[in-house]
Amino acid sequence: MSCEGVGLTKATKGAIITMSKWVYTFGNGSAEGDASMRNLLGGKGANLAEMNKVGLPVPPGFTVTTEVCTYYYNNNKTYPADLKDQVRAAVAGVEKIMGKKFADADNPLLFSVRSGARVSMPGMMDTVLNLGLNDETVKALAKSSGNERFAYDSYRRFLQMFSDVVLGADLDLYEEALENMKKARGYKLDTDLTADDLKELVNQYKAIGEKIGKVVPQDPWEQLWAGIGAVFGSWMVDRAITYRKLNNIPGDWGTAVNVQTMVFGNAGDDSATGVCFSRDPATGENVYYGEYLVNAQGEDVVAGIRTPQPMGSKGQGNSLEELWPHLYQELVDVRNKLETHYKDMQDMEFTIEHGKLWMLQCRNGKRTAQAAVRMAVEMVEEGMLTKEEAIMRVGADQLDQLLHPMLDPKAKKNVIATGLPASPGAAVGRAVFCAEDAEAWAAKGEKVILIRNETSPEDIGGMHASQGVITARGGMTSHAAVVARGMGTPCVSGSQEIHIDYTKKTMSTDKGVVIKEGDWVSLDGGKGQIIEGQIPTVKADTNTGNFGKLMSWVDEIRTLEIRANAETPRDAQQARDFGAEGIGLARTEHMFFDANRIADMRAMILSKDEAGRRAALARLLPYQKQDFKDLFKIMNGLPVVIRLLDPPLHEFLPNTEAEMKELADKMGMSLDEVKQRANSLHEANPMLGHRGCRLPITYPEICEMQTNAILEAAIECEAEGIKVLPEIEVPLTGSKKELDIVKDIIDTTAAKLFASLGKKVEYQVGSMIELPRAALKADELAQSAEFFGFGTNDLTQTTLGMSRDDTGAILDEYRARGVYVADPFASIDVEGVGMLVRLACAKARSSNPKIWLGVCGEHGGDPASIDFFQTCGMNYVSCSPFRVPVARLAAAQAAVRHKGEKVEDYCCCKKSA
Amino acid sequence: MSCEGVGLTKATKGAIITMSKWVYTFGNGSAEGDASMRNLLGGKGANLAEMNKVGLPVPPGFTVTTEVCTYYYNNNKTYPADLKDQVRAAVAGVEKIMGKKFADADNPLLFSVRSGARVSMPGMMDTVLNLGLNDETVKALAKSSGNERFAYDSYRRFLQMFSDVVLGADLDLYEEALENMKKARGYKLDTDLTADDLKELVNQYKAIGEKIGKVVPQDPWEQLWAGIGAVFGSWMVDRAITYRKLNNIPGDWGTAVNVQTMVFGNAGDDSATGVCFSRDPATGENVYYGEYLVNAQGEDVVAGIRTPQPMGSKGQGNSLEELWPHLYQELVDVRNKLETHYKDMQDMEFTIEHGKLWMLQCRNGKRTAQAAVRMAVEMVEEGMLTKEEAIMRVGADQLDQLLHPMLDPKAKKNVIATGLPASPGAAVGRAVFCAEDAEAWAAKGEKVILIRNETSPEDIGGMHASQGVITARGGMTSHAAVVARGMGTPCVSGSQEIHIDYTKKTMSTDKGVVIKEGDWVSLDGGKGQIIEGQIPTVKADTNTGNFGKLMSWVDEIRTLEIRANAETPRDAQQARDFGAEGIGLARTEHMFFDANRIADMRAMILSKDEAGRRAALARLLPYQKQDFKDLFKIMNGLPVVIRLLDPPLHEFLPNTEAEMKELADKMGMSLDEVKQRANSLHEANPMLGHRGCRLPITYPEICEMQTNAILEAAIECEAEGIKVLPEIEVPLTGSKKELDIVKDIIDTTAAKLFASLGKKVEYQVGSMIELPRAALKADELAQSAEFFGFGTNDLTQTTLGMSRDDTGAILDEYRARGVYVADPFASIDVEGVGMLVRLACAKARSSNPKIWLGVCGEHGGDPASIDFFQTCGMNYVSCSPFRVPVARLAAAQAAVRHKGEKVEDYCCCKKSA
Repeated sequence: MSCEGVGLTKATKGAIITMSKWVYTFGNGSAEGDASMRNLLGGKGANLAEMNKVGLPVPPGFTVTTEVCTYYYNNNKTYPADLKDQVRAAVAGVEKIMGKKFADADNPLLFSVRSGARVSMPGMMDTVLNLGLNDETVKALAKSSGNERFAYDSYRRFLQMFSDVVLGADLDLYEEALENMKKARGYKLDTDLTADDLKELVNQYKAIGEKIGKVVPQDPWEQLWAGIGAVFGSWMVDRAITYRKLNNIPGDWGTAVNVQTMVFGNAGDDSATGVCFSRDPATGENVYYGEYLVNAQGEDVVAGIRTPQPMGSKGQGNSLEELWPHLYQELVDVRNKLETHYKDMQDMEFTIEHGKLWMLQCRNGKRTAQAAVRMAVEMVEEGMLTKEEAIMRVGADQLDQLLHPMLDPKAKKNVIATGLPASPGAAVGRAVFCAEDAEAWAAKGEKVILIRNETSPEDIGGMHASQGVITARGGMTSHAAVVARGMGTPCVSGSQEIHIDYTKKTMSTDKGVVIKEGDWVSLDGGKGQIIEGQIPTVKADTNTGNFGKLMSWVDEIRTLEIRANAETPRDAQQARDFGAEGIGLARTEHMFFDANRIADMRAMILSKDEAGRRAALARLLPYQKQDFKDLFKIMNGLPVVIRLLDPPLHEFLPNTEAEMKELADKMGMSLDEVKQRANSLHEANPMLGHRGCRLPITYPEICEMQTNAILEAAIECEAEGIKVLPEIEVPLTGSKKELDIVKDIIDTTAAKLFASLGKKVEYQVGSMIELPRAALKADELAQSAEFFGFGTNDLTQTTLGMSRDDTGAILDEYRARGVYVADPFASIDVEGVGMLVRLACAKARSSNPKIWLGVCGEHGGDPASIDFFQTCGMNYVSCSPFRVPVARLAAAQAAVRHKGEKVEDYCCCKKSA
Repeated sequence: MSCEGVGLTKATKGAIITMSKWVYTFGNGSAEGDASMRNLLGGKGANLAEMNKVGLPVPPGFTVTTEVCTYYYNNNKTYPADLKDQVRAAVAGVEKIMGKKFADADNPLLFSVRSGARVSMPGMMDTVLNLGLNDETVKALAKSSGNERFAYDSYRRFLQMFSDVVLGADLDLYEEALENMKKARGYKLDTDLTADDLKELVNQYKAIGEKIGKVVPQDPWEQLWAGIGAVFGSWMVDRAITYRKLNNIPGDWGTAVNVQTMVFGNAGDDSATGVCFSRDPATGENVYYGEYLVNAQGEDVVAGIRTPQPMGSKGQGNSLEELWPHLYQELVDVRNKLETHYKDMQDMEFTIEHGKLWMLQCRNGKRTAQAAVRMAVEMVEEGMLTKEEAIMRVGADQLDQLLHPMLDPKAKKNVIATGLPASPGAAVGRAVFCAEDAEAWAAKGEKVILIRNETSPEDIGGMHASQGVITARGGMTSHAAVVARGMGTPCVSGSQEIHIDYTKKTMSTDKGVVIKEGDWVSLDGGKGQIIEGQIPTVKADTNTGNFGKLMSWVDEIRTLEIRANAETPRDAQQARDFGAEGIGLARTEHMFFDANRIADMRAMILSKDEAGRRAALARLLPYQKQDFKDLFKIMNGLPVVIRLLDPPLHEFLPNTEAEMKELADKMGMSLDEVKQRANSLHEANPMLGHRGCRLPITYPEICEMQTNAILEAAIECEAEGIKVLPEIEVPLTGSKKELDIVKDIIDTTAAKLFASLGKKVEYQVGSMIELPRAALKADELAQSAEFFGFGTNDLTQTTLGMSRDDTGAILDEYRARGVYVADPFASIDVEGVGMLVRLACAKARSSNPKIWLGVCGEHGGDPASIDFFQTCGMNYVSCSPFRVPVARLAAAQAAVRHKGEKVEDYCCCKKSA
């Protein structure tokens, strides 16, 4: 293979390229990187650089780029040859700023080593703190800090963390030694341990390491390289892979490694560590929100082991504002500076070492959907954002949270405990006490609430499977709280009123209520309430307040029309309430499974001749007509796309012998005759069989009945003053000729009906585009169609040669192996299927500029797909009623993102999609 | 719909367009049309015009164009408004030339009205002769001809033909009247009827018409319009539709109508009618070949009712050469003129009226494959054609005839009767006596020989279903002979030594042999022999003689490489004998169905873990290795593409409970376990399921075994001095990543094997392109592939959304309705699937100019598809061994047809494919 045209920064061919820059330094108010270099430096590294440039106090350090990670995995876990020199030079730079030396026995520089991918993957990857300590440097640290206890506490923490994270030792052995010592000394808290106790513990830790063959190296350089290797290694551990899969993060992005001077929140009672948000991430309220712990390291806050103290709010006595007003003021300044700089709510980590503030991290903060909406709206009102910017700040997928029901305010509730309102929304389910059970119960269709003392990254699958999460420990920034908010799962965290017994699988509350495994529990994540039993829920109000305001901007900005897929009056009404501008897909086959109708449907299928079929169809017509009248009335004034019968007829026949017998008796046929007919309809690959427009071409009478039902309904509705816009859609066409044959049946039927009734109604005829051939021949099809509905589900199945029913396991494997990043049935395969969609749109417009182009199916409600459809020049997307607000927002965001672009910009030869 | 841009000659919008030319005249040495206007005037009309221009004696007339036919069917069976005037003007022109007047009672002009489509559809459509006769004009004809008997014979023929063809009367009623009269008068022959008899017969015919309500109009103009309408009507009768379907003729081509001055071969004993060929259409010999009948009309020769006399060959006493030497010489001049003009063998019809020669038709003559080859080779040797022109003269599909076996010359044969050698080749089958039986028996898998007194267009389906055809009546140009030659079906026609009893379903011969229904019969169509019993057949020799010479030119000219699809040694050997240049597809799955192996295959599938699978695979390896060694030895020096296991694993499991029980016992499993495993492998749409490259990705050990088997076989063969070029092909890929994963398994396995054996062998890895996504991403796939094999079968299934297994009936319906002209699984859907193939080729070359591109599957042996592949820039096609010579010829023809073109000429925006 040739290497021509491969840029020098491309790491995949790194073995050949020797001049790449792999390391970016920052510190002392300057930095080689900046916030725009997120892909190369990871989010954390980019923001550390940016904070330096903004003039904030950041411990100096350097970032090893994500390209080294890519190189590492492409080259059998080795590093570029010149990495070592670049790291040494960067360390020397930090030494110069700090006036200390790494691995120096007199004045040692210590490092933290942290991961940092393009997007935050909280708690997913590994961190090593206090790196650089050994039997010599610990003494120097004791001396320089004048605090021997602190030095040895740092050393034992380092040994424990390094053994766990880098060497893969069993953490319990170290925890056990710690607990044994506390027990032996009669201590309650870790802070009760003296310097001598900690020295002893260090020796015990080293002995454990010897015993299990996992010895922490004394050489700080060896420690550093092992730490870097551990971070890269953590990119490919199962939980990180799972996280990426759940969040559609490509495996080849890789992580960067940030090596940064250690500052110590645990250096004494004049030191602290904290996490804060520039606004409340749960409600969106414009207050300085956060938590800190005196004399602690950062991990202590996040891990949720000690319950931290609040940042501001006077009068509680333990707030930072009250304890250290000048530091609080300094932090308020940082908050203002960063929020103004990034124009977004910031999530910050800081450490106070002997009264000096250091900023360790800032990033755009995760937030609940409710908070996102409130912040976006208020920031516009504050003049910080434009409407366009504001709507970009609410994750379209996140919006889902606001659309789901809340606990019925009128229902009687027995609140059995309260905790922190960590992630809003109502959840109702049966109690389970570990993540595995949550997954197992959910797999059986049970709704569950996961109840834990605290959660860890291993629990992520179980949290995903749960309706809601309850924890006994941890604050608003604990693992459970952060992850639940990210997932949109309601969560009450840190409830000190509950007591969990994992062995008995029970939760007892201070009020004396005991919840056993399987008992129903409800929770209100917005209020932090845990409630006994199964509380009814009600729909959220989405049309008023901040949400209503935001959505009014969304509707101003978006250019895509949003319709819904609905065939029942309930769904249609829900869609209209949620702002749908029509029905983009009414699947008529769903209407035939009703008990009243299936018998006639089967009679139609089993008929030996056209006369028999027509008789059965005549009985079905009144039902169909009523279906359509219901839809037309609800959708008064809006278009309704009705798709002709699509599935193979055998789908309507019974499967079991008993049902067949019953049917045979009802039809006056022998069982054998029914079986034979069912057999003759059987197909090897029904997905590619006798369905779609192939049905009306062979059985025109079905299409005639449906046309009559649609148009009679329309005429009757118009007589009642309803404005009806029926659009009849022909499925599975692959050529103009097929569409013409079916259109002719429809038009002929309509003409006869209009003549017999002496009344007319306007209607349109269009085609689904759901076969590759239809996309390829879209220019010809467009000559006979007034609209296209892209059926991207089937188009994906045929283009990829993958049946959704058969390839679930393979798709999992494919996503794990990076063949597809996202599930192509959930988010459109832009590069493959998308190429056909784009081509079809361009061809359709070339031959029929007025054609109305839309998408129905799963992809119509997926924000990433909607963004793509915007670039194709679609007129509308249609999705499930519940996704309509999500689609509205996603459409507006797509309109902003692609403002000023032309569809032609995306022609295959010009720009890759 | 707008009409902009629709040309004036487009008939589809005819209602709006008033200035079209619908009628083209010819006569007296000039014509408005010429031979190039076949699409507009039909083949017959175009050649009538051309013969005029060449200066041959042609009865004047005019052609109503095929566009009128299209208009007729698009406009509810009405004509363009201005057609009437154009026909009247054309009739006036003919009247002027002939000095007679249509519908004139004194000197009437009479017309023949005949169909004429773009391509000849012999006997498929209707003809009316003697049009213009009525009670008045018949008297004028009697007077002007001085032959009352002739005039009334013409009138009664006209009445009979018009009643049949135009009015749809039951022909038997008229035949009965004729037979009754002959019986009453004691006549044997029609020619025994006197003028008075015929006058009487005319009255009887008119009475029949009155009685059944089908009265022939007296007004000649009414006759003319009815005749034209009947020809257009005959375009859509069942037998014409069937014929078009069998011959891939689009229904929208339409037919032209030729209205031509009548000349009379039945005007007396100085008159005759004949059909002749400029060379022998059965053998290709350069002799003037033909038949004529004195005092007869043209239909008498074609219908095969009277056995005609030969054209040339002195000494027989009844040849035209002996009877009328000057006319014979005139015909020889015509023959030479036309063959030189058209540079091809001509099929001509002529009539002699009172000693004057008239040419009624000429066209390139149908011929047997053997004749086509001989003529092509001899015309090159005569200097008439170039090699390039010559190879275009042999129908690639027709070649099939020469490749099929002939009767073993060494076998003992009892020749029970002889007839005319009407269509060469050997046929062996069981006797049936009607077309319906032939189709029914063939549908059950029986080989049949159809035995009839004569055949008619209604018998075409039965002829198609038969191995061979035998008739008791009719010459070399009878219906049976012409159609059988066209189909490549062996035929012995006009055997006067056989006697058929339809009631008893027997054929008895003069030699006293009786063949009953179901008895075995053999025939040699090249020798005209009918032989008792089932004679063994032997392969034809295709490498010597004219055939060998032609194929050597073919190989000089073609640019496409021809490979074969083969996995058995027998097929591979056959392919090599037929000139294959490698194996383009060896389907390894076929190798596992052998009784010795299926047990291990099933053990592999049923294994619960990888170890169990590996154990079973280890047992399969020696078999696979031997398979590949066999192939490599036969293909010594030529490439062999081996496709990895492709089908879903459940295809290898038994279906019946009994077989499952047996398998369970053998495996030491319970029946339930086997059932459960089979069930878990069951797929809703196996075509889109867990197969292709999805197998090695989930079960790499299968791919490892196959790689080892291929490469061990290759190494062992090389040690024996065999040159091996193995190409390992990965099926069903849709992305580069999938190919990379499998390629990595192959390369890693190969490296291990080479290291362990201390020997290497060159191999290539490539990808099937059989999913739309693979075609769309061909540029990326090509970066990892050394070759592509287009699997156009599966690509057609996915692009069209049509499973071959499920849509046979729909495809028939689709072809009948014009959705697809040809079966898209037999001949590639150029406009749809072809667009993807072309795109993939262009993309592949853009990223990997050296990639080797080929096609396997049905389309690889289809001449029309091969022509298309030539334009895509393919490197090879691969087809079944038997099709290899056909593919070689088709490839050479494609090379000639597209000489000087570039692949880029076909870019979607430049030129439609």
